[in-house]
Amino acid sequence: MFTNIHRTRIEWGDCDPAGIIFYVRYFDIFDAATTALLERALGMKKLDYLEAYGILDHPLVDTRAKFRAPTRFGDEVLVQSTVIACGQSSFKIEHRLTLAGVVAVEGSETRMWAVRDPAAPGGMKSRAIPPEVVARLTQASAPAS
Amino acid sequence: MFTNIHRTRIEWGDCDPAGIIFYVRYFDIFDAATTALLERALGMKKLDYLEAYGILDHPLVDTRAKFRAPTRFGDEVLVQSTVIACGQSSFKIEHRLTLAGVVAVEGSETRMWAVRDPAAPGGMKSRAIPPEVVARLTQASAPAS
Amino acid sequence: MFTNIHRTRIEWGDCDPAGIIFYVRYFDIFDAATTALLERALGMKKLDYLEAYGILDHPLVDTRAKFRAPTRFGDEVLVQSTVIACGQSSFKIEHRLTLAGVVAVEGSETRMWAVRDPAAPGGMKSRAIPPEVVARLTQASAPAS
Amino acid sequence: MFTNIHRTRIEWGDCDPAGIIFYVRYFDIFDAATTALLERALGMKKLDYLEAYGILDHPLVDTRAKFRAPTRFGDEVLVQSTVIACGQSSFKIEHRLTLAGVVAVEGSETRMWAVRDPAAPGGMKSRAIPPEVVARLTQASAPAS
Repeated sequence: MFTNIHRTRIEWGDCDPAGIIFYVRYFDIFDAATTALLERALGMKKLDYLEAYGILDHPLVDTRAKFRAPTRFGDEVLVQSTVIACGQSSFKIEHRLTLAGVVAVEGSETRMWAVRDPAAPGGMKSRAIPPEVVARLTQASAPAS
Repeated sequence: MFTNIHRTRIEWGDCDPAGIIFYVRYFDIFDAATTALLERALGMKKLDYLEAYGILDHPLVDTRAKFRAPTRFGDEVLVQSTVIACGQSSFKIEHRLTLAGVVAVEGSETRMWAVRDPAAPGGMKSRAIPPEVVARLTQASAPAS
Repeated sequence: MFTNIHRTRIEWGDCDPAGIIFYVRYFDIFDAATTALLERALGMKKLDYLEAYGILDHPLVDTRAKFRAPTRFGDEVLVQSTVIACGQSSFKIEHRLTLAGVVAVEGSETRMWAVRDPAAPGGMKSRAIPPEVVARLTQASAPAS
Repeated sequence: MFTNIHRTRIEWGDCDPAGIIFYVRYFDIFDAATTALLERALGMKKLDYLEAYGILDHPLVDTRAKFRAPTRFGDEVLVQSTVIACGQSSFKIEHRLTLAGVVAVEGSETRMWAVRDPAAPGGMKSRAIPPEVVARLTQASAPAS
């Protein structure tokens, strides 16, 4: 399955009065990591693949995260993201965020391939993931550096 | 078990180019909802109960969320938060976010009662939850209006 | 000129390792305060007035803020927002954020009445503010409670 | 005066329903850019220089920004930050954020060298900037790559 490495840095503004990262910011990081994975798998920026495949977004159906060790401002962290399932209209990604080789957070998310639903204001409905997207998300890949 | 109702509004800046809330913002809402629950259960603001009980925070051990329906800017939402378990040094809360009576998101989180760990830079370690806090978190409560 | 009062609470996740609000969050608050002012002046939610007037948004041209006193998590703050100018295609708002009657932040912002510019990807161009909108923004108003 | 280049990428979650960056996120970027400048000028991470100089932070006194052109998710932007004044206990930085060589935002900020004020809960008071810090912030520097 496709795997990608996303690097980022924990900033002062990501941290709370306990001096460590405010956990919500990990989801901001995971969302960017998923975009990075899809952009590399599909060979296009998100702005372009949304248009190329005629979708509105790939919103979350559910997500889970386990927090194993704290990170602090100035920490350079690495997120390894891997597609672990790709179904008819949804796919699942696992994230492993590490600091200096130690796992700090494990996350997983299920996303839907979605178009706007004209019947529901603000609503979306799922659409079948195109075969070429399935092929790219399920191909083996060496992690990028 | 203790239950609290927290009301908030989805703002323009919480929403993404798909026109609906960026899912990460739900965790910001859940964190505020947990604080609101604890403040009402303990009868003190967070600033005060952290000091009163000598803890650094009650950071997350894990969390999960299921997204059932989108919300948009201008939506007034209601979060019903309930303590569903309270152990030796951790407790679990469930959140049910509704829009006009319809469930939009279900979340759950496990939090640790934590003090600073002098042995680990930026680290925290668990401490036993005081009996009076356990008593207050596990008491029945009518939802606030 | 039109004035509105917006109330909000500083949350734990808004604060940084210095224990006070991370200043960037004040701009999130000001944006919500501007929306609140416009919604009350125009008698419609933002979702509706964007559609009613056929605009994409009223993005910022410039902004300024002076930070006079810190606020902390748990603080209930009040933002008084006033239209101080309303021109052909832009308007200016001043925000005064107070905590217990003491001014903590003063902000001002100039916004453009904007439609999408088909000639520029992602771009916007200004459009004349409709006379009824000018009339409503420049009318006197008693602050809401 | 000291100058630094900070590179970042506008993410999906930074953008609003108009499809462009939500302007508040620029201040998150500027704060990270200021940290990057100080870290390079002082040769230490923020966590370390706060401790080395015994300060709590360098909070903002005021800030200003002019928004000249929008940016969108996927845009790789560059922030050139320059110290333009360094006084007794405060310093001023200018940021120029560009996309493909075109200026998108110009910002400036005045920050205070601050320690905790034991007399005011949550308060801070200024302290004289150490001569070696003044020397480093006011030295000429070639922009980093």
